[in-house]
Amino acid sequence: MEALPLTIRANADKAIVWENDRLYLLDQRILPTEEVYIELKTALETAHAIRDMVVRGAPAIGITAAFGVVLAARTCFADSPERWRELILADMEILAASRPTAVNLFWALARMKKLFSSIGANNPEPRLLQEAMLIHQEDVAANRALGALGAELFEGQTSVITHCNAGALATGGYGTALGVIRSAYSVGKIEMVFADETRPWMQGSRLTAWELAQDQIPVTLLTDGAAASRMAQGGIGWIIVGSDRIAANGDVANKIGTYNLAVAAKYHGVKVLVAAPTSTIDMSVASGAEIPIEFRKASEILKWGGQQVAASGVDAWNPVFDVTPAALVDAIVTEKGVVLSPNSKKMADLMGV
Amino acid sequence: MEALPLTIRANADKAIVWENDRLYLLDQRILPTEEVYIELKTALETAHAIRDMVVRGAPAIGITAAFGVVLAARTCFADSPERWRELILADMEILAASRPTAVNLFWALARMKKLFSSIGANNPEPRLLQEAMLIHQEDVAANRALGALGAELFEGQTSVITHCNAGALATGGYGTALGVIRSAYSVGKIEMVFADETRPWMQGSRLTAWELAQDQIPVTLLTDGAAASRMAQGGIGWIIVGSDRIAANGDVANKIGTYNLAVAAKYHGVKVLVAAPTSTIDMSVASGAEIPIEFRKASEILKWGGQQVAASGVDAWNPVFDVTPAALVDAIVTEKGVVLSPNSKKMADLMGV
Repeated sequence: MEALPLTIRANADKAIVWENDRLYLLDQRILPTEEVYIELKTALETAHAIRDMVVRGAPAIGITAAFGVVLAARTCFADSPERWRELILADMEILAASRPTAVNLFWALARMKKLFSSIGANNPEPRLLQEAMLIHQEDVAANRALGALGAELFEGQTSVITHCNAGALATGGYGTALGVIRSAYSVGKIEMVFADETRPWMQGSRLTAWELAQDQIPVTLLTDGAAASRMAQGGIGWIIVGSDRIAANGDVANKIGTYNLAVAAKYHGVKVLVAAPTSTIDMSVASGAEIPIEFRKASEILKWGGQQVAASGVDAWNPVFDVTPAALVDAIVTEKGVVLSPNSKKMADLMGV
Repeated sequence: MEALPLTIRANADKAIVWENDRLYLLDQRILPTEEVYIELKTALETAHAIRDMVVRGAPAIGITAAFGVVLAARTCFADSPERWRELILADMEILAASRPTAVNLFWALARMKKLFSSIGANNPEPRLLQEAMLIHQEDVAANRALGALGAELFEGQTSVITHCNAGALATGGYGTALGVIRSAYSVGKIEMVFADETRPWMQGSRLTAWELAQDQIPVTLLTDGAAASRMAQGGIGWIIVGSDRIAANGDVANKIGTYNLAVAAKYHGVKVLVAAPTSTIDMSVASGAEIPIEFRKASEILKWGGQQVAASGVDAWNPVFDVTPAALVDAIVTEKGVVLSPNSKKMADLMGV
């Protein structure tokens, strides 16, 4: 991976850029301090970029992986125009192994793979690129649709709390949780967005605040542990979050701390809205207990900017996601519709299965 | 304030040191990376050290302020052996204004002031020093007593979650919450101490982990937002925290995030133990709503080590404490006894009023 000058200015809606047959990612690890695009040339580089969180957010991971398949096809077809379908499988596996929780990754890879047989003897790149771009465009369209549906749930103006970054940066553009927030704000239904800073990666401070400030939507940061106190002060109508995977019963895997927030919301009578495209819904897992939860290195908690913060020799428990049971969720908002008080029956109805 | 070599090794039980007529504080802002003692020569320097969090934790603030009165008396008596009682009032006010929430500060200042009239024409320093040392010693004794009482509440072995640092560093020694944990661990009743890292000051990572590691008590750090998830995994018997001020009805002010933890504990059927000496109980405030909550600069959340982390131009909500209502507290453990399911009547009985 190398940092390259690009013709576009860093923009939350352009976290994933395909330009002149090249794939660029806005490096989300160093935002907002630096606005740098990185070019990815191979599927392996793409997998590493996902693993290392250059890009994050379930829909954005899925889109990036789809472009990664395009890069893989380019290399494999150049190596062997006859055997690219075999050769590419190793790259697909590397992409699939990059992160375990976001289902959009596997969904996008499966969707790309489905095309292989129809491509015939041609260079697969144009057809696969078309599909990756379609996945990207559909995601933005889904976010705009679910954003509008989510905004309709608001009765009058209120303040909201969001966690992590489920914004344009986490998706193809516009965002899921931040899509709902953008839609609701645009019609005067949001007074203030409180953003959990979201330890340990600080996606709230670094990404959500950056995105919302760019759009001049009022945002106030707070520590993750302060959210319950903020709810107790009153004036918070909704918790609005995204998701990395939603189970068939409506259980929601999302950034660590989401469950904590949902428990506090329940206690305070604050409603919980989960915004996600249907590509995030995994009907193959019956409940949240079956969703694989990624654990990352303890050093993400013990260190800061490479410097040890915690006492040496101490361990840390670092799950990246948690599962919020459907019983704590008031609404799952997708581009296909809204599911209130989700359960297996309602989720199946939404997904038409 | 200046860093000076001291004859003692940095030790959690020696956060406040009076040696050769000088007052030294272990600088808790830079632990565990550096172990540095700072000498304080005046009441003003002492007030600044409290304000700037060289020392923190309600009992430790109280003890430090008592020694600050000794320094003030030294200066004022040197200035005017006749008028030191008048001159010292300005210093007392500066000390009282250093931080608003911890009641031990005001309690210690009032206790020191009560002696002034009995000192006569003598140099006040020896008598005031004796009292400050007594306050210090009594605090350690209280912690050992309440630690033992707290440990008795444990039925069998369990793991616990603590928040912030209510350890030796936050007190005269041994600690309140960590006093209970030390006592319970010593009799085999604690399997693992999970410590919230405690944003934004990271007292859990920097101080609690350091203290417990020194004592070889097993400790695992987690982000504040992960505590509810950890409770959902099972095996957590108690939340054990300290307090900065307890109201007459048993409401508990403590480090921001404590309320969040108590709400999550309630949801999971985990019990909440608040450990504090009776000097932390303020019978003059009827409920937590009357406890003044300190707000600190947004930059504590927006920056890290002087570097901007959050997007520029964004604000943060930074209350230092929150109030956990008595209804969420299972036990208040003091040196005078344990109050289960606290209320005004039981608190009055404990305090003998």
